Amino acid sequence: MIVILKNDPNPRQLENLRNWLRSMGLEIHESRGANSHILGLVGDTSGVDIDLISALDIVREVKRVQEPFKKASRAFHPLDRCVDVGGVPVGRGHFTLIAGPGTVTHRDQVLEAAARAKEAGVQIFKAAAFKPRTSPYAFHGLGREGLDLLLEAKKVSGLPVMSVMTSPEQLDLFSQVDLIELDHRAMQDYELLRALGKTQKPVLLRRGASATLEEWLMSAEYLLDGGNENVLLCDGGIRTFESNVPAALDPSCVPALRALTPLPVLCDPSVACGRAALVPALAQACAAAGCDGLVISASLDPQHALTEGPASISFDLMKTLSKRIGLLRAALEASHVQ
Amino acid sequence: MIVILKNDPNPRQLENLRNWLRSMGLEIHESRGANSHILGLVGDTSGVDIDLISALDIVREVKRVQEPFKKASRAFHPLDRCVDVGGVPVGRGHFTLIAGPGTVTHRDQVLEAAARAKEAGVQIFKAAAFKPRTSPYAFHGLGREGLDLLLEAKKVSGLPVMSVMTSPEQLDLFSQVDLIELDHRAMQDYELLRALGKTQKPVLLRRGASATLEEWLMSAEYLLDGGNENVLLCDGGIRTFESNVPAALDPSCVPALRALTPLPVLCDPSVACGRAALVPALAQACAAAGCDGLVISASLDPQHALTEGPASISFDLMKTLSKRIGLLRAALEASHVQ
Amino acid sequence: MIVILKNDPNPRQLENLRNWLRSMGLEIHESRGANSHILGLVGDTSGVDIDLISALDIVREVKRVQEPFKKASRAFHPLDRCVDVGGVPVGRGHFTLIAGPGTVTHRDQVLEAAARAKEAGVQIFKAAAFKPRTSPYAFHGLGREGLDLLLEAKKVSGLPVMSVMTSPEQLDLFSQVDLIELDHRAMQDYELLRALGKTQKPVLLRRGASATLEEWLMSAEYLLDGGNENVLLCDGGIRTFESNVPAALDPSCVPALRALTPLPVLCDPSVACGRAALVPALAQACAAAGCDGLVISASLDPQHALTEGPASISFDLMKTLSKRIGLLRAALEASHVQ
Amino acid sequence: MIVILKNDPNPRQLENLRNWLRSMGLEIHESRGANSHILGLVGDTSGVDIDLISALDIVREVKRVQEPFKKASRAFHPLDRCVDVGGVPVGRGHFTLIAGPGTVTHRDQVLEAAARAKEAGVQIFKAAAFKPRTSPYAFHGLGREGLDLLLEAKKVSGLPVMSVMTSPEQLDLFSQVDLIELDHRAMQDYELLRALGKTQKPVLLRRGASATLEEWLMSAEYLLDGGNENVLLCDGGIRTFESNVPAALDPSCVPALRALTPLPVLCDPSVACGRAALVPALAQACAAAGCDGLVISASLDPQHALTEGPASISFDLMKTLSKRIGLLRAALEASHVQ
Repeated sequence: MIVILKNDPNPRQLENLRNWLRSMGLEIHESRGANSHILGLVGDTSGVDIDLISALDIVREVKRVQEPFKKASRAFHPLDRCVDVGGVPVGRGHFTLIAGPGTVTHRDQVLEAAARAKEAGVQIFKAAAFKPRTSPYAFHGLGREGLDLLLEAKKVSGLPVMSVMTSPEQLDLFSQVDLIELDHRAMQDYELLRALGKTQKPVLLRRGASATLEEWLMSAEYLLDGGNENVLLCDGGIRTFESNVPAALDPSCVPALRALTPLPVLCDPSVACGRAALVPALAQACAAAGCDGLVISASLDPQHALTEGPASISFDLMKTLSKRIGLLRAALEASHVQ
Repeated sequence: MIVILKNDPNPRQLENLRNWLRSMGLEIHESRGANSHILGLVGDTSGVDIDLISALDIVREVKRVQEPFKKASRAFHPLDRCVDVGGVPVGRGHFTLIAGPGTVTHRDQVLEAAARAKEAGVQIFKAAAFKPRTSPYAFHGLGREGLDLLLEAKKVSGLPVMSVMTSPEQLDLFSQVDLIELDHRAMQDYELLRALGKTQKPVLLRRGASATLEEWLMSAEYLLDGGNENVLLCDGGIRTFESNVPAALDPSCVPALRALTPLPVLCDPSVACGRAALVPALAQACAAAGCDGLVISASLDPQHALTEGPASISFDLMKTLSKRIGLLRAALEASHVQ
Repeated sequence: MIVILKNDPNPRQLENLRNWLRSMGLEIHESRGANSHILGLVGDTSGVDIDLISALDIVREVKRVQEPFKKASRAFHPLDRCVDVGGVPVGRGHFTLIAGPGTVTHRDQVLEAAARAKEAGVQIFKAAAFKPRTSPYAFHGLGREGLDLLLEAKKVSGLPVMSVMTSPEQLDLFSQVDLIELDHRAMQDYELLRALGKTQKPVLLRRGASATLEEWLMSAEYLLDGGNENVLLCDGGIRTFESNVPAALDPSCVPALRALTPLPVLCDPSVACGRAALVPALAQACAAAGCDGLVISASLDPQHALTEGPASISFDLMKTLSKRIGLLRAALEASHVQ
Repeated sequence: MIVILKNDPNPRQLENLRNWLRSMGLEIHESRGANSHILGLVGDTSGVDIDLISALDIVREVKRVQEPFKKASRAFHPLDRCVDVGGVPVGRGHFTLIAGPGTVTHRDQVLEAAARAKEAGVQIFKAAAFKPRTSPYAFHGLGREGLDLLLEAKKVSGLPVMSVMTSPEQLDLFSQVDLIELDHRAMQDYELLRALGKTQKPVLLRRGASATLEEWLMSAEYLLDGGNENVLLCDGGIRTFESNVPAALDPSCVPALRALTPLPVLCDPSVACGRAALVPALAQACAAAGCDGLVISASLDPQHALTEGPASISFDLMKTLSKRIGLLRAALEASHVQ
């Protein structure tokens, strides 16, 4: 951590600051120039609250040298993490397709969708029973009944399942769900993060609509610090000025996160782009950027069902896309070997 | 609601759509031109899921004419709302100052701060006992013990108090707290919104860092739809590309919300600008934009305490600022009369 | 175009509006409901200034049904455009690599770089002689002398060349340059756009840092409307809140633009991500999203030269990347055929 | 400037870097800890290209301690700048109202508008003759003829005038214009900045839609470095995700710029908020934030003229607003004295 002082700091205040920093076990390297006076802090600064120091009259700015996260940091955990989701390995070279309809609506739908998903090459089936919605008047899912139907689909299809959890009180209800999905609006729901941190349940942690990579990893740190190492990150786009798409898919985050963290990184082009026509191109883009898997909205007869959002693709297209991505990844791997 | 069709829509699909819309009790006005074919829907469209229609092959775009919120809408509730917070009226011409330290740290601090706040003209005292923090390693507040100290400060000072609630399980604990604050990260925590919607507790609903006005009002709608009409809105800045401040205070939202909703609108310059030096100018700006009150971080001896963020101002400055804003508002009112 | 009126519009003002619209040759379809009153305008609305109508007291909102651009619109020009750049076709199924150092610094550098670029599979060589820089104190290029060196490199290598133009006065100077690059800061420099619109010079029009797709295409419309159809679009990322990268590469724009315009779309991962380590992953992502080519910063010995930005890759890596993208594109094409 | 090295830097590369830095006259303070190795550079670093150092393999990050601008910096020029615009002082405690219609449309309009502006308390009259427009099909102003009419209005009314310049070639044409306005799209049009930097013409430099404060001041630095000290800054809002307004007015920039620069700072609520109903509240907000003046769109009969944008207010409202802001400023000054 580096503390940049204002010109001519009050000597008594400066001495107070030095003493306080030393009392936290930090060593101070001081560098003084014509226009700058800097304190370089050496030691474990993860416990130092950057805001407290910034508040001092004599301080111009404080800059971190190290990241504020540790358990999510590649610096401390260099090896790629691999998470087991109901027998399906995610991360460390594996590539995982998670797909399914937005919501469980009735028994036939979820059973048939799971069968079609399996046939299309999907490895983890997804559907929400508890559906966070911006409007109180929208359909919020079938709840417990929907979850039962999803678990029946799991049994029949043999695919592990992912579903959205919205409250710590649902933990028991989700005991047979293989992968807990946290909605992007819940990335900083610390109650939920702490509750899940105490379990060993795999968690898919979606990036908040305007979360920085650091904030996102700090939320992962809540899970990891609680003792749960089964964390997957999933980008579904970030909020920008551009109104052509609901959110701008951010493939830059894939290689950027690779450098910062060993956690698997997935991408969800469906929620980002908001319409089916863009999904294949963006799914390919994310795969080519090197992500560990994709989350895709796919449903039976998207054109006539009137029950799915405009980003849902058909399982036929899902199947084609799954093959294309396999070929694309093979081509990239082949060229690595050359 | 207006449905803009693609050129040459499939006649059978179009007829299906017409029938489906009529089955929802909507009247259809059709307008057909050389380059456009439009369905104008007349009737109550609040139950129509815009995404379902957008998903159809024959539809190019769907546009709302009416807002998706009703109970938060000025169109249906023209009169300015006034919320009673422990005897202090907020909204409908009143101007309310809410201030206090970020966190309760010990008994002397909170008692003295409340006394100083009262003397400075503050009407509602605030301090967090449960503190949402981006890092799991940061100080998260004293919890239940902190809340007890805050309630003691309420008793001694006679000021109503505001404090952050982070979970529906804390409802009983907050029975004596006059105003429940929802952190900006919890604006779309629907479990918390539903739980508070069932009470009559005044709620200060902070705007999410990248929430649109419509999303914000939809979150208010959750509270109102539950039956709780005591809702205050508070802007603490929005997330932008500019890194000079943590968030860009958005005074445009004050007159814009006035047109959309009768709910009181407050502003928090402290969390937005992130440093004390900018607080007075921005507090004045928000007051001049016509907001119903301010939330300001103020603490004892911000320079030496090393316990508050860099945006905290002293109670001496709080007092001066309170007076200035009074004069400013008087000047604006005088000029209205002229 | 759809005009949504406020409730109970003044009848005289409404009649004035109707007459004015009819005087512009538009037909009006009126649709009136309990809560809405809408005018649907049929006819050529490209000459109607949306702001003028919005300004009227009786109007709540005006919405376009058609895009405001025509010559850049796929609706009017369905066939993919192919632009000839010094013998190299860009667009309509071709994939073009444009690469080279940021700036011409001296004769040996530019000649050797061009030779290495050619060997690496690059089809158009690039280097700036006039370099727009945020700071007046930074190196702004060698100017006319640099351009001469670039043209020598063109002659020796046989590669067509691209270079940045900053003023209409440079038109004569650039007569031998095959592709004129417009800096992202100049996307709305209408003087420059008009001047280039009068030529037949191929132009690479970079997207402004916060330009919407519509604004970008309106800038292309300036060139096309002037008579120059040789327009390439190039995304170099958009400005967001995320500070991990200078700009967020926006591959969503590739399929989105495909639907809107027949113009070729290229991507520049180097300027977007700002560091060499991210370039390969992002270059692959853009290619997989279906863009028509890439612009990449590549230079001799990026580690020791101290003359290039941190995003420059070596020509060795450029060569590998060129091959990988070839394989990737072959895999995607193969899967289309299946 | 601080150079943060990666762990275990290559000793030979590190020695090269040290030598190169010393060759630029910089002193190096080295600070080495268990997890960090830092070089503190002391001396004049304004000539050091931060990108060059960042590009080195051994460097993790480079951080500036000092701002990259000098002539626009308050650190070097502590006294508030006052700019004389045709006899009207701007800055250093003065408060200046600049207002007028968006565009000169005909003789009567501009003459009457100037008279009404003067009567309303406006000090500088504005109207565009050369109008940058997003669309090539929109009205781009009357050009030279419009400028002549504006100069006639100047003569008749006695008010100094401001008008938009779009090309260095117009310099002669603008010789009688008192204040040159640079459109927000031209903030980084370096040709225009350099040309104006060689004159002594007062320039109103609008902030780009997504320009950081630093980028904005670097553009001012172009003017100042050329020798023109008559620079006014004007914020017209920044681009965000919020679609309720075209741009989010950013009053935080007023006190933030005060700390960074001695240049006068004005605000334009009209272009930011895009509709007349929001203008008064936002004009008051900017004045209360401490800006040096306002730019406001005002026109004759905005409701019926059909020639102005939706943000134009009437001169009657302009007059009222001018008075209110006077009272508001008096109240703030009075409270300073107390």
